[in-house]
Amino acid sequence: MEITFVLQHMGNHMEEVLVVLLMDVLLAFLSLKLICKWILTEGQSRITTPRKETDTCKIFSGVSEGITTGTPIHVSVPNTDQRGHDYSEMAVAYRPSHADATYDMKYGVRSVQGGGRSSARETIGRVASGAVAKKILKEFSGTEILAYVSQVHKIVLPEDLIDHDTLTLDQIESNIVRCPDPEYAEKMISAIDAVRVRGDSVGGVVTCIVRNCPRGLGSPVFDKLEAELAKAAMSLPATKGFQFGSGFAGTFLTGSEHNDEFYIDEHGNTRTRTNRSGGIQGGISNGEIINMRIAFKPTSTIGKKQKTVTRDKKETEFIARGRHDPCVVPRAVPMVEAMVALVLVDQLMAQYAQCNLFPVNSDLQEPLVPILRPEEALL
Amino acid sequence: MEITFVLQHMGNHMEEVLVVLLMDVLLAFLSLKLICKWILTEGQSRITTPRKETDTCKIFSGVSEGITTGTPIHVSVPNTDQRGHDYSEMAVAYRPSHADATYDMKYGVRSVQGGGRSSARETIGRVASGAVAKKILKEFSGTEILAYVSQVHKIVLPEDLIDHDTLTLDQIESNIVRCPDPEYAEKMISAIDAVRVRGDSVGGVVTCIVRNCPRGLGSPVFDKLEAELAKAAMSLPATKGFQFGSGFAGTFLTGSEHNDEFYIDEHGNTRTRTNRSGGIQGGISNGEIINMRIAFKPTSTIGKKQKTVTRDKKETEFIARGRHDPCVVPRAVPMVEAMVALVLVDQLMAQYAQCNLFPVNSDLQEPLVPILRPEEALL
Amino acid sequence: MEITFVLQHMGNHMEEVLVVLLMDVLLAFLSLKLICKWILTEGQSRITTPRKETDTCKIFSGVSEGITTGTPIHVSVPNTDQRGHDYSEMAVAYRPSHADATYDMKYGVRSVQGGGRSSARETIGRVASGAVAKKILKEFSGTEILAYVSQVHKIVLPEDLIDHDTLTLDQIESNIVRCPDPEYAEKMISAIDAVRVRGDSVGGVVTCIVRNCPRGLGSPVFDKLEAELAKAAMSLPATKGFQFGSGFAGTFLTGSEHNDEFYIDEHGNTRTRTNRSGGIQGGISNGEIINMRIAFKPTSTIGKKQKTVTRDKKETEFIARGRHDPCVVPRAVPMVEAMVALVLVDQLMAQYAQCNLFPVNSDLQEPLVPILRPEEALL
Amino acid sequence: MEITFVLQHMGNHMEEVLVVLLMDVLLAFLSLKLICKWILTEGQSRITTPRKETDTCKIFSGVSEGITTGTPIHVSVPNTDQRGHDYSEMAVAYRPSHADATYDMKYGVRSVQGGGRSSARETIGRVASGAVAKKILKEFSGTEILAYVSQVHKIVLPEDLIDHDTLTLDQIESNIVRCPDPEYAEKMISAIDAVRVRGDSVGGVVTCIVRNCPRGLGSPVFDKLEAELAKAAMSLPATKGFQFGSGFAGTFLTGSEHNDEFYIDEHGNTRTRTNRSGGIQGGISNGEIINMRIAFKPTSTIGKKQKTVTRDKKETEFIARGRHDPCVVPRAVPMVEAMVALVLVDQLMAQYAQCNLFPVNSDLQEPLVPILRPEEALL
Repeated sequence: MEITFVLQHMGNHMEEVLVVLLMDVLLAFLSLKLICKWILTEGQSRITTPRKETDTCKIFSGVSEGITTGTPIHVSVPNTDQRGHDYSEMAVAYRPSHADATYDMKYGVRSVQGGGRSSARETIGRVASGAVAKKILKEFSGTEILAYVSQVHKIVLPEDLIDHDTLTLDQIESNIVRCPDPEYAEKMISAIDAVRVRGDSVGGVVTCIVRNCPRGLGSPVFDKLEAELAKAAMSLPATKGFQFGSGFAGTFLTGSEHNDEFYIDEHGNTRTRTNRSGGIQGGISNGEIINMRIAFKPTSTIGKKQKTVTRDKKETEFIARGRHDPCVVPRAVPMVEAMVALVLVDQLMAQYAQCNLFPVNSDLQEPLVPILRPEEALL
Repeated sequence: MEITFVLQHMGNHMEEVLVVLLMDVLLAFLSLKLICKWILTEGQSRITTPRKETDTCKIFSGVSEGITTGTPIHVSVPNTDQRGHDYSEMAVAYRPSHADATYDMKYGVRSVQGGGRSSARETIGRVASGAVAKKILKEFSGTEILAYVSQVHKIVLPEDLIDHDTLTLDQIESNIVRCPDPEYAEKMISAIDAVRVRGDSVGGVVTCIVRNCPRGLGSPVFDKLEAELAKAAMSLPATKGFQFGSGFAGTFLTGSEHNDEFYIDEHGNTRTRTNRSGGIQGGISNGEIINMRIAFKPTSTIGKKQKTVTRDKKETEFIARGRHDPCVVPRAVPMVEAMVALVLVDQLMAQYAQCNLFPVNSDLQEPLVPILRPEEALL
Repeated sequence: MEITFVLQHMGNHMEEVLVVLLMDVLLAFLSLKLICKWILTEGQSRITTPRKETDTCKIFSGVSEGITTGTPIHVSVPNTDQRGHDYSEMAVAYRPSHADATYDMKYGVRSVQGGGRSSARETIGRVASGAVAKKILKEFSGTEILAYVSQVHKIVLPEDLIDHDTLTLDQIESNIVRCPDPEYAEKMISAIDAVRVRGDSVGGVVTCIVRNCPRGLGSPVFDKLEAELAKAAMSLPATKGFQFGSGFAGTFLTGSEHNDEFYIDEHGNTRTRTNRSGGIQGGISNGEIINMRIAFKPTSTIGKKQKTVTRDKKETEFIARGRHDPCVVPRAVPMVEAMVALVLVDQLMAQYAQCNLFPVNSDLQEPLVPILRPEEALL
Repeated sequence: MEITFVLQHMGNHMEEVLVVLLMDVLLAFLSLKLICKWILTEGQSRITTPRKETDTCKIFSGVSEGITTGTPIHVSVPNTDQRGHDYSEMAVAYRPSHADATYDMKYGVRSVQGGGRSSARETIGRVASGAVAKKILKEFSGTEILAYVSQVHKIVLPEDLIDHDTLTLDQIESNIVRCPDPEYAEKMISAIDAVRVRGDSVGGVVTCIVRNCPRGLGSPVFDKLEAELAKAAMSLPATKGFQFGSGFAGTFLTGSEHNDEFYIDEHGNTRTRTNRSGGIQGGISNGEIINMRIAFKPTSTIGKKQKTVTRDKKETEFIARGRHDPCVVPRAVPMVEAMVALVLVDQLMAQYAQCNLFPVNSDLQEPLVPILRPEEALL
């Protein structure tokens, strides 16, 4: 028996982007209206290129008379952005650094229209279910997940400019590049503009933090919390790397510089004075802020001529037609939050069943008790 | 039904390190003697601090009359390195940046002797099963997995010094730090010596490549090949980051600089001229060399006094007693190879069942056909 | 990584019955038209009470330009049979021997309209995916799965009347009760009529056989083939029992009466002269006909007054309104076939990856080789 | 992430029966001594042919200083019953109705000594872990699982002789055949004696009940509680059938005879007056007694000459040498209890995480609250 937030993307047919969100957890206090609102807020308005899809999110199952029933929630978001693409060229030539060639190598066939499952549109499903996961975490343990853009091309946001203890969603959403520092946001926007006019693209880095994560999440050996987070993040399109805590930079420190010393805080909790561990020690959350950074490569679709080959192994040239996004990193912000939220709800459920069914040492174990009553959560 | 190389570490009791290796795949051509040899070679001789455990690897199940039977293989490697530790201090004080505190937060209890499941000794089980996985990949598709140390503290091996097309195991094993460049190996050893005398420790980076990986491995959306590799690598103790292909450095390039153009090689195969994709596009292997880098933090156990707290929440000081390893990165080399091998065998089996049961387009799909007959493999 | 035919029912909302069929296996030779045809044939025409839904089966993903792409196939079958039910009574009173009370005990909430996931309509999804699974088995190994009604209330079809070597689908489909013997079919229909006029209902038994099942399917210990089949069958609504081979009757025999002696047939195959093992020995298929029987209780919905209680724990009376089916057993026939087919495709994929990647003893092992080329299958 | 009682049998080597019991649930109040005692009690003394293995059960991991640590518990039970078998004959001839032939068909190789994974000795592992699962259920919810022999060959215990509300373990264990009715126990023993003297064997039926099962266990659609129980029971060696509640006999009733009417009992609980549903409705437990019956075929190993074939496809004859058990049904009693217990702990953990993390309707939902404090449980 698997207790899990099962997330399944059902594909990406020509006519619609189908979002499927399976939840065996009972979310009976979540109203249909609220779910739709969250999905639309997260998945739509937080995307730089606005699309007019606000009124088209539809829930087919899992909700009855305003509350969820324990049945998987099926959310469908039609793709209204069909612009009469001519797919004939794409059907022949492999776009460089896209998944065209590898899908053929694997399956011997692929869905040209809409990009199939390698289209970034599949991430709407992740954001939709992540919205619900974030709600659960917020209600249950006051856990907050916030991501932001910390690098675009060569513009690197200095780490000490952002205070992770006080960072807010409003700060992140105050500009279209989703960088909480206004000055660096401007620089990033300029950097994107610089490549856009040349038909080129850039990548960057998304930083994500988790505040008030319950202690004790994660499993020893193979399913360490950082391993689960790494898999979740690296399953997003265009990712090239993942690091948490001190990350790759930490390899330049000595052990005495790197270790986090323990102390007892004013509430009697065991804490670390520094947080190079990134909120996770031995694969298990320790209650400090979890922080991680994910690298996204520059968008593969560019308005420049490139050499490539066709399905029938002839060399040719390819140039992408129509509009394309010169930098996907701001769009990746809600995707990263969603994947982190899904991992944490999974881990919360696991920990609740494994170690809270029979808690044995209440002095040491983190009690998993909702901070809000479900009735209160409805208000 | 799960078709998988199941790897289960059975714990780490005072008296023995138990290695359990479950394989539902039939390895009937693998002799008992060969398995023991591989395990010992991988798990023992490739560890810097030699231990005298060569003759103690024992197989309890899964092999009959010299060939495996399809039953899980149970390998036990006794811990003969018991040095009469006094665990009384450790039972009280949480060692900084170890898993002591988080195990208590999760379970309310922990196994002090031998470090329990957070001890790096659990990786013997990974290396043992990885040895068998590497053998399968080598026999089936000529796939080779090689890892080496590319950074120790501030000594960074320049990327262009190593030719991944011709790199050999002998080059890596030619020195104790497992860096294939002799000059940089010397620098790394000196760097380790420099901290050792001060009772301090350093970390570093392991680079791992896969040559001749079959095309088509990996799954769309959530189980992309890079996501599986990231989880596997990040489940190793002391890891802080994972990157593949162009990695974090790739975020400083533009799309036109980063994209890998396709061409047809002299054997009629679809290839890329550059390999910033790191052998994986859209989550699926494309036949180019897979390359990845994994960050390992400096060893937490150091011979210097550190502030910490006790289980009953009193502040205290801690200093590790006895010998300890000033740099674990060379030891991590076979661990990384093992985890990568386990992921690839899993993916190979999945691809074989999913897309080779009914191959539909032999011009495009990579045929999964063993390069050696089992009879030949026995020689 | 799970290699499997994943079957997921997405719920049962007021407005539609949603059928979701996930297949990671590549079915590229299956055309969209064929899939629709099979689903409609299996799921619709083989149901005693005809509904006019023939033209409403819609595939949203997984098929492109007439062939499947490896993407999960999403099939939707709208519920056009909405007859303006008054659910107000049902919302209050628990229907005896339905799932109303237990859903409340589990979830604290339930979907009254359409019965939620406890409605038998969810089985359309099973039949749809089972139709594809049966096609794969037929093409790959000539495997045939046939189920029929062998008991209705007190009318028990004598076992020796049906020859499992020659039984055909036409014989089963020659009458509405799906009993291949015309005389007993008449008796069964009369038995159903007898209770219908009284507003009562009856149950019965479905027998299912598998011919030409590949040898070697099933796993030792926990995932024996009979265990998988039992779970699959017992997950159908209204089931009360499962038996295979000699079943419960076999407990009245002695070992010398029950054992199946081996012989070598004219093709050099190892066979058993009798088949009390029911085609499975030690949890693994042996190539003989697999046979099993599944008990279905009488329909819970009856037109008679029954005592019950309300959600708020008051005693009351309940009588079902409108038409209801006095015997569901004929409808269960395609459901049983579907579940058996899904189990066997799962096992076939597992066996292919586990024991066919490196077959080691071709004299003993059953070769898993498609009997038809994919190209031929298209004709 | 799977939250589960993972049970893994590690094989069955010539020299020892290895029992592996994996538990991610924390059983910190279970002392090492208690676990050993339970395992020995369940697995050893409840077996008709006593073996002198009382002092040989050894725990290698998962327990530290008398309490479990959350690490998988590795229990090893050496096979001290080696009687210098001559396996040369068995290596050649397939024993009728054993797994010899099918293991060869699947793997092309098999472990002759000790029977490999098809030996009934593997069930010691199930009984060992089941013992712990039963302890958890007893402590958490007062849940009791009791099985007994209700049929041996043609001796059928009348159902109304046993009162499932008051049945005790002592009644069952009062005789070697494990039938709680002394008179029928005598008849069964005589029936076994009758075939033993002829070198033949008999089968029978085990009935199992669950009292005080928490309401709400089980999942809709595919993972119904009866489906999980059926799979668990049918994974035991020699099983031929499973039924629960009214079972196959229920197919002879009409709906009005079969339905269980609801009422409110003196504690205000929703109950059913009859229990033809067998404690499960719509796949979910309703708090009534769960009852099921499992058919076991007559032992395949008999002291009579039988026709068979050899591995190299020559016809021959076979007669089993040495002692063999004429009836395994009494031995199956603790196995059935163990498998039922493992299923219920899994379901309890799932339900706790899914529906107790945020209970939404405490008037309807069964609260999952331990009836004993862990501290009390230790006494």
